Amino acid sequence: MTKRNPNLSSLKPTYLFPEINQRKLHYLAQHPQAKLISLGIGDTTEPIAPYTVEGLVTGASRLGTREGYTGYSSEQGMPLLREKIAETIYHNSVKAQEIFISDGAKCDIGRLQALFGCGVSIAVQDPAYPVYVEGSLIHGVKKIEYMPCTPQNDFFPDLQALPPVDLIYFCSPNNPTGAVATKDQLTELVRYAQKKHAIIIYDAAYAHYIQDLSLPRSIYEIDGAREVAIEIGSFSKIAGFTGVRLGWSVIPQELLFEDGTPVIRDWNRLTATIFNGASNIAQLGGIAALEPQGIAEMRTLVQFYLENARLIQNGLKTLPVTVYGGTNAPYVWIHCKGKKSWDVFQNLLEQVQIICTPGSGFGPAGEEFIRLSAFGKRDQILEAVNRMQNFKL
Amino acid sequence: MTKRNPNLSSLKPTYLFPEINQRKLHYLAQHPQAKLISLGIGDTTEPIAPYTVEGLVTGASRLGTREGYTGYSSEQGMPLLREKIAETIYHNSVKAQEIFISDGAKCDIGRLQALFGCGVSIAVQDPAYPVYVEGSLIHGVKKIEYMPCTPQNDFFPDLQALPPVDLIYFCSPNNPTGAVATKDQLTELVRYAQKKHAIIIYDAAYAHYIQDLSLPRSIYEIDGAREVAIEIGSFSKIAGFTGVRLGWSVIPQELLFEDGTPVIRDWNRLTATIFNGASNIAQLGGIAALEPQGIAEMRTLVQFYLENARLIQNGLKTLPVTVYGGTNAPYVWIHCKGKKSWDVFQNLLEQVQIICTPGSGFGPAGEEFIRLSAFGKRDQILEAVNRMQNFKL
Repeated sequence: MTKRNPNLSSLKPTYLFPEINQRKLHYLAQHPQAKLISLGIGDTTEPIAPYTVEGLVTGASRLGTREGYTGYSSEQGMPLLREKIAETIYHNSVKAQEIFISDGAKCDIGRLQALFGCGVSIAVQDPAYPVYVEGSLIHGVKKIEYMPCTPQNDFFPDLQALPPVDLIYFCSPNNPTGAVATKDQLTELVRYAQKKHAIIIYDAAYAHYIQDLSLPRSIYEIDGAREVAIEIGSFSKIAGFTGVRLGWSVIPQELLFEDGTPVIRDWNRLTATIFNGASNIAQLGGIAALEPQGIAEMRTLVQFYLENARLIQNGLKTLPVTVYGGTNAPYVWIHCKGKKSWDVFQNLLEQVQIICTPGSGFGPAGEEFIRLSAFGKRDQILEAVNRMQNFKL
Repeated sequence: MTKRNPNLSSLKPTYLFPEINQRKLHYLAQHPQAKLISLGIGDTTEPIAPYTVEGLVTGASRLGTREGYTGYSSEQGMPLLREKIAETIYHNSVKAQEIFISDGAKCDIGRLQALFGCGVSIAVQDPAYPVYVEGSLIHGVKKIEYMPCTPQNDFFPDLQALPPVDLIYFCSPNNPTGAVATKDQLTELVRYAQKKHAIIIYDAAYAHYIQDLSLPRSIYEIDGAREVAIEIGSFSKIAGFTGVRLGWSVIPQELLFEDGTPVIRDWNRLTATIFNGASNIAQLGGIAALEPQGIAEMRTLVQFYLENARLIQNGLKTLPVTVYGGTNAPYVWIHCKGKKSWDVFQNLLEQVQIICTPGSGFGPAGEEFIRLSAFGKRDQILEAVNRMQNFKL
């Protein structure tokens, strides 16, 4: 009989967010009247803005016409969308042909893990988005180094302490801590990768939540990054496309494997073989989002969620906790000294019917922390802040 | 420096269809006035029908409203879509919870390959859709058995000659041969898998091109298949969704690994970790396609492409070739005795400016064959048939 893939059996039985959902459903079964507020998973709640949604609607409509119908689009994405990302997001510091359109950052991280295979060693920030580690385990990776990122080191890892690795996952603005790496810190990271011949997988899904213009929005703002870094981007949190599914990855032509093969060549081969492009409707929505009116809409949406984050930060002032993040990021990272993350999760649920994400779900260094997401409807955020005034840690 | 993944370097440099495209572009560069007709890649050309496209348009529009907006949908797919597939496609012989919505069959095959990992041995029909072998190679599979499917064996493999394997990829109606397995043949396949403890990955992407009601449209029409088979389905060729991206996989609860773990459990874990669901707009389009008006539209579309296939079959009658498929399938499989596939490809391109797919691109047993796709606009199909009358093999 077919054996179970040991890479799957090595995982915890449940991915973090389904586990939170199970606990939520368990609580609701016992308290059917409870009015829960979810500040757990980072899921957008505001409608897609008019100009952008019109791009989606037109994209769908034209598929019903003889002139407008299109079948498969290129696995790499529509040329116009790739050009618009190169121009508006990267100010032409990367080329359109280096941008690969995906059905979202999470899915593309999975494909990148298939690209590098099971023989690589990886390093992740601790805490980190679970997909870096769990997706790597699914693809058979055996060597994983955790780089603690805590208030003590300003959420930037001690690279001197890191043993040699092939890939370094780095997320800024960080999920879950909300920390944003400075230009000096990213320069240190790029220099380290150059010196040690590592590849950085730079997750910039929240880049456009950065308001402080001195902070880099892309790893390619650092000299030399094109030789060492892949960058992942997403429309999910800036255009409300979590359900629409659209993102991209940048693979610069200068990025090479040890034998001199350009990484972009193997990536082209892999995506042509086991991917078939993002939905053409989503891509036409993405094109609209990158036109001037769409960009203005995205800015407004980002401001809305950042105002949520500010309200949450303020609401926490009376509690005996220390608050991080939430200024250039949609996540607020809360240190509840001496408390276990899952205990705080359960207390918040039972006392004030608020769902958070327990920090330990993001890695060992997340213990004693919880993450609150600023994605939510305004009345729910205000109500959550109100309820938290009565919360006893 | 990071080493290249040997699983990628083991592949031919180019996937089949991009290679065809390169040859096409090369020809066009030399003959800029040429009016090429592509019967190569199986890409839909008819607009999406009115009721179904309205599902997509409404699905997109509602994302712009406060009441209709939704963020992430479940990784497994929208419950209503899963129920509709269970009901209309499977007449409730599978449960909604066993159906997992994907962004298309090709992408889901890639994820299934990650599910089973590199330690499995596989068997594929020869010729076969290249993704079975190449996706397996990408995921590190080392043991691959080819099962010749030729006119001599009625395109059904000699299972007695097959060494033990973990997974058997089987596609019916077949891409590229257009052959459809009979109920007896599928029963033999299922009995073989039961006896030898193999798992069948049954690609039913073209199932609804079957017009002969005595031929099974699903592996689950065979008793016992639920214990041994995964089935893959797609909206691409029945609703014109090649660019929209929507499909599904069925993982029956009875399907177990050697240690008794249900395959569905690991599949849930994998999709939750490295997938984020198909586009919500595509899913709402899929729901419309499965309502009575949508189903009627799909039937009409299938008839249109099957009429194309009949026209191609007729058009080939004067040529010294033997023609297979094209009756319950959108592909016509043509034996050009004594000729190399790529030579026929090049001759067709140069003599009559028609693009086909060379059979050898689907595996060694495809040599001497070419595949013509019935997906195309009617005037183009008629013009192609006309041109072929002057074709010298």
